[in-house]
Amino acid sequence: MDTQRYERGWKKLEEIDGDAGKNVMESLKDIAPDLGRYIIEFPFGDVYSRPGLDLKSREIATVAALAALGNARPQLKVHIHGALNVGCTREEIIEIMIQMAVYAGFPAALNGVFAAKEVFAERDNSHQPN
Amino acid sequence: MDTQRYERGWKKLEEIDGDAGKNVMESLKDIAPDLGRYIIEFPFGDVYSRPGLDLKSREIATVAALAALGNARPQLKVHIHGALNVGCTREEIIEIMIQMAVYAGFPAALNGVFAAKEVFAERDNSHQPN
Amino acid sequence: MDTQRYERGWKKLEEIDGDAGKNVMESLKDIAPDLGRYIIEFPFGDVYSRPGLDLKSREIATVAALAALGNARPQLKVHIHGALNVGCTREEIIEIMIQMAVYAGFPAALNGVFAAKEVFAERDNSHQPN
Amino acid sequence: MDTQRYERGWKKLEEIDGDAGKNVMESLKDIAPDLGRYIIEFPFGDVYSRPGLDLKSREIATVAALAALGNARPQLKVHIHGALNVGCTREEIIEIMIQMAVYAGFPAALNGVFAAKEVFAERDNSHQPN
Amino acid sequence: MDTQRYERGWKKLEEIDGDAGKNVMESLKDIAPDLGRYIIEFPFGDVYSRPGLDLKSREIATVAALAALGNARPQLKVHIHGALNVGCTREEIIEIMIQMAVYAGFPAALNGVFAAKEVFAERDNSHQPN
Amino acid sequence: MDTQRYERGWKKLEEIDGDAGKNVMESLKDIAPDLGRYIIEFPFGDVYSRPGLDLKSREIATVAALAALGNARPQLKVHIHGALNVGCTREEIIEIMIQMAVYAGFPAALNGVFAAKEVFAERDNSHQPN
Repeated sequence: MDTQRYERGWKKLEEIDGDAGKNVMESLKDIAPDLGRYIIEFPFGDVYSRPGLDLKSREIATVAALAALGNARPQLKVHIHGALNVGCTREEIIEIMIQMAVYAGFPAALNGVFAAKEVFAERDNSHQPN
Repeated sequence: MDTQRYERGWKKLEEIDGDAGKNVMESLKDIAPDLGRYIIEFPFGDVYSRPGLDLKSREIATVAALAALGNARPQLKVHIHGALNVGCTREEIIEIMIQMAVYAGFPAALNGVFAAKEVFAERDNSHQPN
Repeated sequence: MDTQRYERGWKKLEEIDGDAGKNVMESLKDIAPDLGRYIIEFPFGDVYSRPGLDLKSREIATVAALAALGNARPQLKVHIHGALNVGCTREEIIEIMIQMAVYAGFPAALNGVFAAKEVFAERDNSHQPN
Repeated sequence: MDTQRYERGWKKLEEIDGDAGKNVMESLKDIAPDLGRYIIEFPFGDVYSRPGLDLKSREIATVAALAALGNARPQLKVHIHGALNVGCTREEIIEIMIQMAVYAGFPAALNGVFAAKEVFAERDNSHQPN
Repeated sequence: MDTQRYERGWKKLEEIDGDAGKNVMESLKDIAPDLGRYIIEFPFGDVYSRPGLDLKSREIATVAALAALGNARPQLKVHIHGALNVGCTREEIIEIMIQMAVYAGFPAALNGVFAAKEVFAERDNSHQPN
Repeated sequence: MDTQRYERGWKKLEEIDGDAGKNVMESLKDIAPDLGRYIIEFPFGDVYSRPGLDLKSREIATVAALAALGNARPQLKVHIHGALNVGCTREEIIEIMIQMAVYAGFPAALNGVFAAKEVFAERDNSHQPN
């Protein structure tokens, strides 16, 4: 195991996903711990740690893709949190969803907006600033 | 017909997609001119003209979504051009595709990279600066 | 804002989706009111108001597409209601789902049938005639 | 093998898909003849032969679903032919594609329209009446 | 109706899906009994009864496809049960999901793992050996 | 860079994909070399190198998923080669595609069979034994 890569990934996961990311890791521990390790190493240790595209833009890309695919609601919610954590405003999140109406249809946009609504409520309840 | 909306949309289409957008409109003329009009009015006149998310971020979202869905290659190519036209660098385009390996799998990322390679060659051939 | 288009769309929304459509609009009010306005203007004011394909056939196309995509269950249910509201029989709804077994696989057909089962029960409970 | 079912299916295939259907069967002969037999027996012998939804509506559902999924262009073209063969007008085909802009996004609608354009040209070239 | 085919299918359904399969049939009885009959006849009576690919490999293919598509969770769970019933180990199920991270992205893999976790718990609760 | 992981991945890539894999790496060199490196390290160095599921079963899962998704034809062909390289028979490949008719619809199965037909011809032309 490449410790440096793992540590870099863990820090990135904390920075982007916060507790939500740690909860996913926790829930994988008894069933697929290696998948948890790969998530830290490859997406976070390798990809999110790359220069060439800032974190905010990476999360815009991710939120857009997950809203368009429409088949991974829990991960969409984690990444709406993530996008807000790295500098997106709530308004920008809603604009991404409206943009998806054009490319993936209005049902994708609607379900994206309703996922965002839940995320915003969760953040209001835990007194997060944005 | 709402002329103002149409004109605003046409300008936005020119700004983002350039000749590629006009070619799509041209090819719709004899078969589905109203779809062409709707594209100018709704995606460009309404959505791309909104404040709240800058054009570059809108194109990042679009390129990501189309690469992830993987079922609309011509439109993916048009929007790689569009992203470059509104300020994305080639490096950023490639980074979006690598980001998609995580959320839509490596085949989506590979096909996105190969679409980008074709777009970059088209731009080199027509002596575009980026 | 084009008032005529909005009003035409609102009437169409009422005709097709009834209360379900109004509930969606209501739920968008505090989070993405512009997306609600676009839904009234473009899908209902523009597309559903077009001649060239009758409303019943438009809903057959919509129910088939949403069942095949399989990633937008709330909208599938709204449009099963819509299809029944504009003249489809319950038997025709079930036949659309069986047809989808061929083109999108048996899981899509099964999930479409179970969505229809819920819709039929909702209509029985509110004493709707079909 | 249930001969009656096979013969009913073959007649239905001829009625809906004409030569296009027979060409598919021919191309399966040396590689997967049983898949060819199943296609005749199940989709055509069982599903398309059912009462409860007329053939034209079945093809509207199929064209809509294949345009929305966007990942099976050859079959989309076969079924645009099929829809025209069982009574759809060219205008209705285009309307189905415009309808899909709402539920699957503009790229799906555009690619559906361009597939229809090719089918209409093929029919003009072989002097088919619609 | 071809009785032999139906009986062969029913036995196959029992062998692979056990009670889960019978429950699906039961739930179709009042709403779409013919879809239930087709499921027994075509997937089970025809396809799963074919030589050329062993049952365990057929279930590996099915679990992989349903996890990758990500839009049919109930059927994914039924087929994780099915795969275990015909000889897959729990470890092999988890490995299929990790394999899907590569081809359909990490969200597909995660949701596949969590579906498996539920299935394993259901089997522990009903004292099944694997 | 973790050299051991890269070397293990490269060997696995050669074993499974042969020249097709090397060609993909070659084509990435000037446009996205890091994506090439990640493909060797993560899918091949990490995932395909795992115990717990034999290589043949991993390729069955991959071919099934790519045929079901239907939006990555070049990768589907590479992995039909791969499956044959690690022990699948041509008959088994066709059976996977027929299995997909049930879970992703007949168009997915047909396009999978036609991709396999091309792969088999390529192998006949280069005198490969299976």
